[in-house]
Amino acid sequence: MSLNPSRTVAELKELRALTGDANGAQRVAFTPAWVKTRTWLREKLGTIPGLETHTDAAGNFWATLRGDSDRALLLGGHMDSVPNGGWLDGCLNVMAAVEVLRRINEQYQGKPPLTVRVVDWADEEGARFGKSLFGSSACSGALNMHEARVLKDRGGVTLPDALKAVGVDFEKVKDSGVELKHAAAYLELHIEQGPVLLDLDLPLGAVLGTFGVERHAITFHGQAAHSGSTPMNRRKDAFLAAGKMSQEIYRIADQHGGVCTIGSCTTKPGIVTSVVEECRITLDQRHLDAKALAGMLAAAKAASERFAQEGNVKVAWERLWQIEPRPFHPELIELCDAAIKETVPKSHRLPSGPLHDAAETSGAGVPTVMMFVQSLHGISHNKIEDTKEEHLELCVAAFDRLASKAIGWIQKL
Amino acid sequence: MSLNPSRTVAELKELRALTGDANGAQRVAFTPAWVKTRTWLREKLGTIPGLETHTDAAGNFWATLRGDSDRALLLGGHMDSVPNGGWLDGCLNVMAAVEVLRRINEQYQGKPPLTVRVVDWADEEGARFGKSLFGSSACSGALNMHEARVLKDRGGVTLPDALKAVGVDFEKVKDSGVELKHAAAYLELHIEQGPVLLDLDLPLGAVLGTFGVERHAITFHGQAAHSGSTPMNRRKDAFLAAGKMSQEIYRIADQHGGVCTIGSCTTKPGIVTSVVEECRITLDQRHLDAKALAGMLAAAKAASERFAQEGNVKVAWERLWQIEPRPFHPELIELCDAAIKETVPKSHRLPSGPLHDAAETSGAGVPTVMMFVQSLHGISHNKIEDTKEEHLELCVAAFDRLASKAIGWIQKL
Repeated sequence: MSLNPSRTVAELKELRALTGDANGAQRVAFTPAWVKTRTWLREKLGTIPGLETHTDAAGNFWATLRGDSDRALLLGGHMDSVPNGGWLDGCLNVMAAVEVLRRINEQYQGKPPLTVRVVDWADEEGARFGKSLFGSSACSGALNMHEARVLKDRGGVTLPDALKAVGVDFEKVKDSGVELKHAAAYLELHIEQGPVLLDLDLPLGAVLGTFGVERHAITFHGQAAHSGSTPMNRRKDAFLAAGKMSQEIYRIADQHGGVCTIGSCTTKPGIVTSVVEECRITLDQRHLDAKALAGMLAAAKAASERFAQEGNVKVAWERLWQIEPRPFHPELIELCDAAIKETVPKSHRLPSGPLHDAAETSGAGVPTVMMFVQSLHGISHNKIEDTKEEHLELCVAAFDRLASKAIGWIQKL
Repeated sequence: MSLNPSRTVAELKELRALTGDANGAQRVAFTPAWVKTRTWLREKLGTIPGLETHTDAAGNFWATLRGDSDRALLLGGHMDSVPNGGWLDGCLNVMAAVEVLRRINEQYQGKPPLTVRVVDWADEEGARFGKSLFGSSACSGALNMHEARVLKDRGGVTLPDALKAVGVDFEKVKDSGVELKHAAAYLELHIEQGPVLLDLDLPLGAVLGTFGVERHAITFHGQAAHSGSTPMNRRKDAFLAAGKMSQEIYRIADQHGGVCTIGSCTTKPGIVTSVVEECRITLDQRHLDAKALAGMLAAAKAASERFAQEGNVKVAWERLWQIEPRPFHPELIELCDAAIKETVPKSHRLPSGPLHDAAETSGAGVPTVMMFVQSLHGISHNKIEDTKEEHLELCVAAFDRLASKAIGWIQKL
């Protein structure tokens, strides 16, 4: 066994030096830094003889080690980051997968019993165009072409034009679906991005699936009125109704067992001397269970209507986005748990609040599981994102064990 | 008696046609439309022989009818408006005062027992530089020169430069204080800008004084965290604490009998997928009683600290502005009430929530009172601002009676 987890840590540090700065990782998809990252990744993989690499129709990068069978084990992640991002989000997965690929290549002397592939999905973060999971949703077929075609970045550049600049034809991105033809399982390692494992003092966890998401904008419409001359009982105060939601979502999350977040609040006219006429808040609700998620949404709607009525204002809901829960494959969850327990004394099963490309492979019908490694501070999408080096090495070792178990599992299918 | 209130209504309509558009009044101070308004006003006054007019060191316009005594009755208002303003806010006062001046001139054949002056204060609204009561506060001496010197409009023009363009030397604006030397009383008529008289179905009211104001920005500091991966009990949610204030200010206003307004709310990072790290709200509190105002402020501070502690966030207060309550002269309030009762069946005494130039004359020690006329919709600073024509005529008649009573009162001093 040639697995060398410390090499993964060293490579991640090398990548950080190459593509980060004092504010964090700067590998935003489709930018020069992202292209440079791909070149660097290709060089790292070039040391494995016989490995085939190519970029698919959606800009996803694939490295394929052909085995005795066409049936393929996929190990995936994403090299792109948010602006001023953390040094591990995304690239840890890919670099751990590269190390696992090296081990498999060496163990089977270039010819494993089934095909093993590493994928670097394009634009998981959606930082530039506000649409996450671009490459994996194109590949799964879930991408809404109509919506994606008109996405623009802050500079007014459209997604199709940005793709063209990196050699991708937007109208053909779903041709990438062919890549999943022989996919038998998909494994993804990721930092947790939350504090659950940290609070439990556990390095590793098996992920049950990704939360379903209901994302809405809620706008309360009242009446602007002078702050000095309008008696309190005559006001139609949009902020009063919106403010009541701040506590209500905690009650709703507690009752249903999910998470709810009001992430933004804007007020119009938004001046110190006027009652708020219009208040818009965004609400993000997540749950692993579809029925419970629907229950949380219904409860929030009912509350908003109650608060609107109490305050003599109106309320309107606009759906911004939704995705159903994506529970992972039960047998792969068991294998993940077992791989963790062979590496550290204790495992923990937990849902993933954030979305990952694994949600798309799961949605496309590929048996999928993820493994989480503890995140220090529970913070991600930030330069302070970090994980202990010993935990990074442990997660590479556990992920490698999971890959071995998955190969065995696929062979028995 | 030559008082002709219908002429005032006709002149206000003429002014609306001259300086308004489909979006409302456009007489922002120090702009060409405002200069045009002054020219128009001077022409209207030109029909009174022997009337002296001049612009003082702060840009306030004075029309003086010299009487047997230097002691002067001042009738004031402001011709400037907010952008897209109402057709009555400010100019009703001046045009009613002009009509009263015509009557006095005629009654006393150009030589009243004491001097009567009409003043059009410069930039009451503060729409361009964010500093209201400019001309009257320069005249009263309350203007903070240090703060005013660096005020800029959206185009980057400083207040001193804007004043220079209309012939006013910023460094000398307080020389205008000489205008108050012989001032024995100041009377101001204004639309209510609120719904109190409307709700009572009364056309006119005597104003007790202007509310004191405490204006603060309250910033809650929490921690940004991923909306999907952060358990509810681990959050430091700045919006949760700020949202609780929305209801609390209604409790505080109810308990102390004043008004409290949260007029704006901003969130950082302000994205749908993150717990709010920083939430800034503005709080405007007003009361006619200084002790009660201090009590409302203390209660809001205590509540904000309680909510911050409950939510594990921090809170910081920043004072934006304050002014103490300015109760009007008790005897003039009685005279105002009497003048109203001679004009309509019933009067009502009420405080003024908005500030007016009368707050500055009162602060300068000039016995002061205001009269309010009912505002339809209770809405001001908007093109829909309106008052019934019959109420406009009634208010001119009542204001004229108040002027007569004030002359008698001054003579007895």
